[in-house]
Amino acid sequence: MNINETRELLENVKNGSLAIDKALEDLKDLPFKDLGYAKVDNHRELRVGYPEVIYCEGKTPEQIRGIVEIMLARGSDILGTRASEEAYKLVKEICPKAEYSKMARTITIKNKEPETTNTYISIVTAGTSDIPVAEEAAVTAEIFGNKVERIYDVGVAGIHRLFDKIDLIRGAKIVIVAAGMEGALASVIGGLVDKPVIAVPTSVGYGANFGGLSALLCMLNSCASGISVVNIDNGFGAGYLASMINKL
Amino acid sequence: MNINETRELLENVKNGSLAIDKALEDLKDLPFKDLGYAKVDNHRELRVGYPEVIYCEGKTPEQIRGIVEIMLARGSDILGTRASEEAYKLVKEICPKAEYSKMARTITIKNKEPETTNTYISIVTAGTSDIPVAEEAAVTAEIFGNKVERIYDVGVAGIHRLFDKIDLIRGAKIVIVAAGMEGALASVIGGLVDKPVIAVPTSVGYGANFGGLSALLCMLNSCASGISVVNIDNGFGAGYLASMINKL
Amino acid sequence: MNINETRELLENVKNGSLAIDKALEDLKDLPFKDLGYAKVDNHRELRVGYPEVIYCEGKTPEQIRGIVEIMLARGSDILGTRASEEAYKLVKEICPKAEYSKMARTITIKNKEPETTNTYISIVTAGTSDIPVAEEAAVTAEIFGNKVERIYDVGVAGIHRLFDKIDLIRGAKIVIVAAGMEGALASVIGGLVDKPVIAVPTSVGYGANFGGLSALLCMLNSCASGISVVNIDNGFGAGYLASMINKL
Amino acid sequence: MNINETRELLENVKNGSLAIDKALEDLKDLPFKDLGYAKVDNHRELRVGYPEVIYCEGKTPEQIRGIVEIMLARGSDILGTRASEEAYKLVKEICPKAEYSKMARTITIKNKEPETTNTYISIVTAGTSDIPVAEEAAVTAEIFGNKVERIYDVGVAGIHRLFDKIDLIRGAKIVIVAAGMEGALASVIGGLVDKPVIAVPTSVGYGANFGGLSALLCMLNSCASGISVVNIDNGFGAGYLASMINKL
Amino acid sequence: MNINETRELLENVKNGSLAIDKALEDLKDLPFKDLGYAKVDNHRELRVGYPEVIYCEGKTPEQIRGIVEIMLARGSDILGTRASEEAYKLVKEICPKAEYSKMARTITIKNKEPETTNTYISIVTAGTSDIPVAEEAAVTAEIFGNKVERIYDVGVAGIHRLFDKIDLIRGAKIVIVAAGMEGALASVIGGLVDKPVIAVPTSVGYGANFGGLSALLCMLNSCASGISVVNIDNGFGAGYLASMINKL
Amino acid sequence: MNINETRELLENVKNGSLAIDKALEDLKDLPFKDLGYAKVDNHRELRVGYPEVIYCEGKTPEQIRGIVEIMLARGSDILGTRASEEAYKLVKEICPKAEYSKMARTITIKNKEPETTNTYISIVTAGTSDIPVAEEAAVTAEIFGNKVERIYDVGVAGIHRLFDKIDLIRGAKIVIVAAGMEGALASVIGGLVDKPVIAVPTSVGYGANFGGLSALLCMLNSCASGISVVNIDNGFGAGYLASMINKL
Amino acid sequence: MNINETRELLENVKNGSLAIDKALEDLKDLPFKDLGYAKVDNHRELRVGYPEVIYCEGKTPEQIRGIVEIMLARGSDILGTRASEEAYKLVKEICPKAEYSKMARTITIKNKEPETTNTYISIVTAGTSDIPVAEEAAVTAEIFGNKVERIYDVGVAGIHRLFDKIDLIRGAKIVIVAAGMEGALASVIGGLVDKPVIAVPTSVGYGANFGGLSALLCMLNSCASGISVVNIDNGFGAGYLASMINKL
Amino acid sequence: MNINETRELLENVKNGSLAIDKALEDLKDLPFKDLGYAKVDNHRELRVGYPEVIYCEGKTPEQIRGIVEIMLARGSDILGTRASEEAYKLVKEICPKAEYSKMARTITIKNKEPETTNTYISIVTAGTSDIPVAEEAAVTAEIFGNKVERIYDVGVAGIHRLFDKIDLIRGAKIVIVAAGMEGALASVIGGLVDKPVIAVPTSVGYGANFGGLSALLCMLNSCASGISVVNIDNGFGAGYLASMINKL
Repeated sequence: MNINETRELLENVKNGSLAIDKALEDLKDLPFKDLGYAKVDNHRELRVGYPEVIYCEGKTPEQIRGIVEIMLARGSDILGTRASEEAYKLVKEICPKAEYSKMARTITIKNKEPETTNTYISIVTAGTSDIPVAEEAAVTAEIFGNKVERIYDVGVAGIHRLFDKIDLIRGAKIVIVAAGMEGALASVIGGLVDKPVIAVPTSVGYGANFGGLSALLCMLNSCASGISVVNIDNGFGAGYLASMINKL
Repeated sequence: MNINETRELLENVKNGSLAIDKALEDLKDLPFKDLGYAKVDNHRELRVGYPEVIYCEGKTPEQIRGIVEIMLARGSDILGTRASEEAYKLVKEICPKAEYSKMARTITIKNKEPETTNTYISIVTAGTSDIPVAEEAAVTAEIFGNKVERIYDVGVAGIHRLFDKIDLIRGAKIVIVAAGMEGALASVIGGLVDKPVIAVPTSVGYGANFGGLSALLCMLNSCASGISVVNIDNGFGAGYLASMINKL
Repeated sequence: MNINETRELLENVKNGSLAIDKALEDLKDLPFKDLGYAKVDNHRELRVGYPEVIYCEGKTPEQIRGIVEIMLARGSDILGTRASEEAYKLVKEICPKAEYSKMARTITIKNKEPETTNTYISIVTAGTSDIPVAEEAAVTAEIFGNKVERIYDVGVAGIHRLFDKIDLIRGAKIVIVAAGMEGALASVIGGLVDKPVIAVPTSVGYGANFGGLSALLCMLNSCASGISVVNIDNGFGAGYLASMINKL
Repeated sequence: MNINETRELLENVKNGSLAIDKALEDLKDLPFKDLGYAKVDNHRELRVGYPEVIYCEGKTPEQIRGIVEIMLARGSDILGTRASEEAYKLVKEICPKAEYSKMARTITIKNKEPETTNTYISIVTAGTSDIPVAEEAAVTAEIFGNKVERIYDVGVAGIHRLFDKIDLIRGAKIVIVAAGMEGALASVIGGLVDKPVIAVPTSVGYGANFGGLSALLCMLNSCASGISVVNIDNGFGAGYLASMINKL
Repeated sequence: MNINETRELLENVKNGSLAIDKALEDLKDLPFKDLGYAKVDNHRELRVGYPEVIYCEGKTPEQIRGIVEIMLARGSDILGTRASEEAYKLVKEICPKAEYSKMARTITIKNKEPETTNTYISIVTAGTSDIPVAEEAAVTAEIFGNKVERIYDVGVAGIHRLFDKIDLIRGAKIVIVAAGMEGALASVIGGLVDKPVIAVPTSVGYGANFGGLSALLCMLNSCASGISVVNIDNGFGAGYLASMINKL
Repeated sequence: MNINETRELLENVKNGSLAIDKALEDLKDLPFKDLGYAKVDNHRELRVGYPEVIYCEGKTPEQIRGIVEIMLARGSDILGTRASEEAYKLVKEICPKAEYSKMARTITIKNKEPETTNTYISIVTAGTSDIPVAEEAAVTAEIFGNKVERIYDVGVAGIHRLFDKIDLIRGAKIVIVAAGMEGALASVIGGLVDKPVIAVPTSVGYGANFGGLSALLCMLNSCASGISVVNIDNGFGAGYLASMINKL
Repeated sequence: MNINETRELLENVKNGSLAIDKALEDLKDLPFKDLGYAKVDNHRELRVGYPEVIYCEGKTPEQIRGIVEIMLARGSDILGTRASEEAYKLVKEICPKAEYSKMARTITIKNKEPETTNTYISIVTAGTSDIPVAEEAAVTAEIFGNKVERIYDVGVAGIHRLFDKIDLIRGAKIVIVAAGMEGALASVIGGLVDKPVIAVPTSVGYGANFGGLSALLCMLNSCASGISVVNIDNGFGAGYLASMINKL
Repeated sequence: MNINETRELLENVKNGSLAIDKALEDLKDLPFKDLGYAKVDNHRELRVGYPEVIYCEGKTPEQIRGIVEIMLARGSDILGTRASEEAYKLVKEICPKAEYSKMARTITIKNKEPETTNTYISIVTAGTSDIPVAEEAAVTAEIFGNKVERIYDVGVAGIHRLFDKIDLIRGAKIVIVAAGMEGALASVIGGLVDKPVIAVPTSVGYGANFGGLSALLCMLNSCASGISVVNIDNGFGAGYLASMINKL
């Protein structure tokens, strides 16, 4: 119930066309119902004009197609993350313009060309194995209407490669750094770039990496200011947050 | 060596006033020297007009006074974090306008009134014991020239208190959430507010909190998008990052 | 040896048909034998009229069918948890009325309609992926004779969905909350509902969730009173405990 | 705003004594304000007639006295947990009937004799070092109006001592078990008693106990059904939850 | 080189049939060679008359057959642990009397009937899923010439089953307890039995069992004296140590 | 109720001096009462002629003196572990022959000379800092009537020192190895000695030792057979178990 | 741009054949480009005459063949680590002299015979299951031009086997020790050998080995000086570092 | 027993002056005795001409003075690590030329000027708080006769400071990197310097640093080759190993 509907209700009470008991009944759910339409924003029910997002992990291809079908009926742009190729094939049947990124494991459906930002987001990886997570971030940022620059495989083990690209990285409004074995990269970039850095630890690696724990701790302990961290492998979260900041 | 100096060098080579061997020598350190003057930004040597920051933990009061003395000579605004009252007393002797926040454990010296932003940063805590970390963030954000709104002790155990303040929180350009026992608060705010949220786990609590680990993991796993995390108890980092984003 | 058998023994001693030495021999095992009939209650050998429970994990379908066969001979109601569909098929052969829940991975056989409680148990999940654990709890609670209300996918990232259902949740005598990525949900419900809350961390999620550890710690640290926690993914345990409390 | 106040508002709108714009303004905060009076229950702002609780850890004796002063003015019964003797002395000055338990580290002030339950809560410890946590639970349960039976130092290393008391334990409506080195005790009692068991791991012990982690994990993995766990050393939480269940 | 061979060498030196330089050469390896026959005992090169042991994990069936072939040539009894059925089939081809325990995953070849001890080892499990580890211990103890009593599925959740068997357990010279979900069992038996207890945590279980960590910690923290612990799932180690103690 | 009392009861039933209902009543508690007198053995209430043990940690000097007083009245030998010098001084006042080991932190009172075993227990440490734990084991073993050989500071970093003493170590019936930084020592001794080895990890060390965790894991993973492990720093437990095995 | 090219540039500026603006442009990237030719060394772009290394994990066989193709064109020697047999087959098609080590999982292509060092590297393993990691180290060291001695399966459980080989181990300039269950081996060798020891924990083992964590911690805590540690299973890193030290 | 003594023994056997039984007895201890005199080297009993080392942690000042006294009698150079100022004062009394480094917490006594190496060891720290650990390494390296260059406070947060010093770092034969919050520094230096790097994690930091764990894991996972790691805060170990390599 929005503000206009509430005003209408009060007017109907005033002019007698609505009984007070009936009005009380209608107001009963106000606390919670009201929250929904007006202010709440989450990654599943986003604001008007925003893509709708499906987290595909643990859903069957049929379930995913079903969800897409409903969203298409609403005319939404759609982003499916952690999607298998099988899911994509089923989606493709009902929506031929659906696209699939094997690397990012995303399904994307764009119904209207999004207005793209002038500023861009730099997405940096330490190694080639961190690219899938980076691509999830990149595809997310793009479908939310951001320009993205990819700077991949510039880990600190060969730091001159990073320096070759440092101006491109610095030109961004916000930087995402995805790294598994080399969580160090976030610190180094944080020290070289005067922009917010979102660090994404990846589960890439072996041994004492412990599924991304090493990179996660390394990034959290960084002395360079301006760095914050999202969950291991959470490319979507990084892309979404970067988009949010890029549009401030 | 900046671009003009390099041009001068080349001109001197051209007109013969500089021998090639000597020019080669001068160019030798270019890779690193050049980096310094132009572009590097870190939390110890910040840009012109910014406060200088001292991390006081593990430094003696005498050392801290010494550092402050040098900085004062440069005319800098100064922020000392994790500072004891003893350190403050020594600093006060050489700089009577120094101020101390017992809660935030910060020393601040403002030589010029910073231009303050129009937008503000909301700083939220779950409990009263999280306030010291929140205050470190608040003092940091303020000395870097940001307006701050404090919304303390609104943990989810009594969620109506949070709702009482939700509009104030939402009005910010960016939100900091500090919580120890109740890492949950970051998720809840992330779900209610369409702004970037910086979550600061605090080491407050006991038992299975394991020095902040529980809050840290809880915040990293949040399903609400738009949340990122800094190190446990790192109020300074949160305040600095929030300032950076607030000024984008 | 039950109370009647003991009385008979004493009578036989009295009337001389049993020698004292022989009686002493018979009484020797009394300490332990006696425990069984009178007071002990565990999830494998429950009280008269209660379903018998099989934990199917690690048992072959043939073994499970064998156990069911013996239980059927006793006329018991039966609950098989963590059961595969293969096991169900074998059980179905010998007991056509056996039912299988693919979601909960349970086999249930009801020989008599249980008396159902007037009060009900609310079972709440944060996301859709937590539903299998919740269903194990629900099926358990139902076969033990409880009314259950399912409130699924109401995580705090979209907190208005939770509020839509809050009265239904509050109407219960006891609440079960199953959550993986969002252990926060248990805290929030604990703060909103004046009933005991049994929190079940689930292993759903990735990265820093570490197989449910994050949700487990988050739930244990909750500041809201009235919350206790069972093992990760232990839907059965939550359902059984809730039934126990619901019938107090 | 409660239901009667809302009805009055609507009547005033109807009879014209309240302008619609003013009514809209009044309704604006309804969602959250409303939550408070009606349904929310948390351990700080409990229902009418319930004691008010102060978590004293990290508060100065002066702060505690201040809080007590305000609560006394409301005529509340008061429970202060994790309170030092210094805090007690200050409280005693303004409220001579305040009592202190050195063992439980609690301050209690009873203004009216609580109605006590007929059923009782059994509180069991494995060793003597677990008693402080158990006492926090006991004092909490008692000030919330429950009868309590203490059965201390009956760890499984000398299991006959447990058996001596088993009938007393079984007579309770709910059982609390506090144990540090011997998390096993919760399992054993869970197997012997057909009542809900709240297990409280304590941080007592050394070496591989790792601050209570061992007891915590042991209790979570118990095969005996009917057991749930609260945070390490959280005697208050156990006592509060037990009281809630005891009064169902 | 054993003591008799060394004596022979010295005699040959004495009677001149062996040159001193040649004798020095032969003695050169004495330090290490000598160790073998006299005093060293490890699970690969055991004392005369003892079975030889093959740890099959990570070896191909062909490699295992090859090792068995060499050992058979020495006339040894053989124990293969963690052996697959495939490996067994190959071994069977070259040694028809080889036996396989599917439960214990052991291959055993007995060439001579071992002298069996008069005293016996009790091997106890909490649940049925702990039996494979217990059987590895049992088969090991038996091929090393010990009498074994198996007491399975007597976990503390149904403690009367344990009491039914307590005299059998107590009759042993040493007790092995294998338990996964219920590490508590070792404590309880340690409290009831005045014999050394070797506790074997098993990786059975789920959730907060963390691959046996919970049982391991629980067993290490036991207050009952006389308990020591071996590695998770190390049935062989427990059986071997029990045999060593049983023969003291 | 012991066997004679039970016989008397049956005779009274037989001769009619005891009614059957009354007899049933008397037998009711038999299960648990009976356990006590006959068979139970734990480290607090040990068998006749054995020392009584006080775990002093967390008890005040006054409490310890009180406990000693009661035990002295029973004529017991007494072992107090983890005892402070203050406690010792109070005990000394009431029992002049009490002795204190500063190294082992034990109070011992011997009223009668124990019969000492012919076989001995070797107690080995890696470094000098492991000696306090070793001494707790040694004092325990001695007061329980065992001969002990101490072989200290023979860590594998200087393995020849170990070899110098190897025959002394091998001569024992059972070996205790206490090590913190060098858990490796237990493996090495296990490979050299054909006797049961009880490994005691100590919390000595720094950094990645993590309070003894490193030594604990190292000892558990030892490939040498015949090794088992007790809790970190649990010298008493090792000494008690070694005594138990030494007397088999 | 190397020193000669830079000199040429300056000469061209001097003689007027290169405009200053153009020269500035060329120098712009000097900082980073320059780093490459002169000083930077990493495992992907090694010094002239060194093999090029491909970390094959996570790359498709086709990708690996593609990379090899480019490297072959440069005439490089090539080392592919963590390579599958499938990848090898594809590589073999385009380079018949490529060799594969099934044990080490390496592809090697030698175009020129490397100059081999006079000194050698000893590579030692505790068990046979540690050999694959040791072989990765050995193959790496060899293709970088080092002589290697392999001393396998000499774990401390049978320490005489180690002593048999101790002189061979001591003869090396540097020693690599790979061990999983028996991290102890590194300490023992560190105590016996006066050479730098590189310890490689392996993930071999089960239970409390926790994927190599036990060996890792054990090695880090070694009291023997001269030991350092690389990542779990990082045979390549150990071999590369040993080669670096061997050539100092 | 060395080769000559053994020859003599054999000759005595041959000429009859030594009975065979007596000779057998003498040969019995050969395996271990022999090891000692010839080859063993450890950090406490180092080679002739080397300083002797005392690990002072956990030793009383009196004990330390006692040990120093004995060493002085041998004319040794002495290094005491982790020494308190109290210990130093006592040592100073008996040896006036003893020196103390407050920063490194070392006592050093040099009786003869060590021959110093031509090559040097670079010791690098990320922050100022890492200096104590670096100084322990430096003092160690120096007393073992190495030239040392200290490059402190060049963490990656301000990477240009590192670049200013890169040539000095590169000039070393081996590099030590000590870092706590910024384990990243080891990776960066490993990528820039073609020399072995010994990484020392320090326990400096707070929050998710977990006592040095974060730095430790980060360093172990470094992609830059040529890096190995010693225990957290183990400056001595790093200095000793660096000395060993520097002298190869």
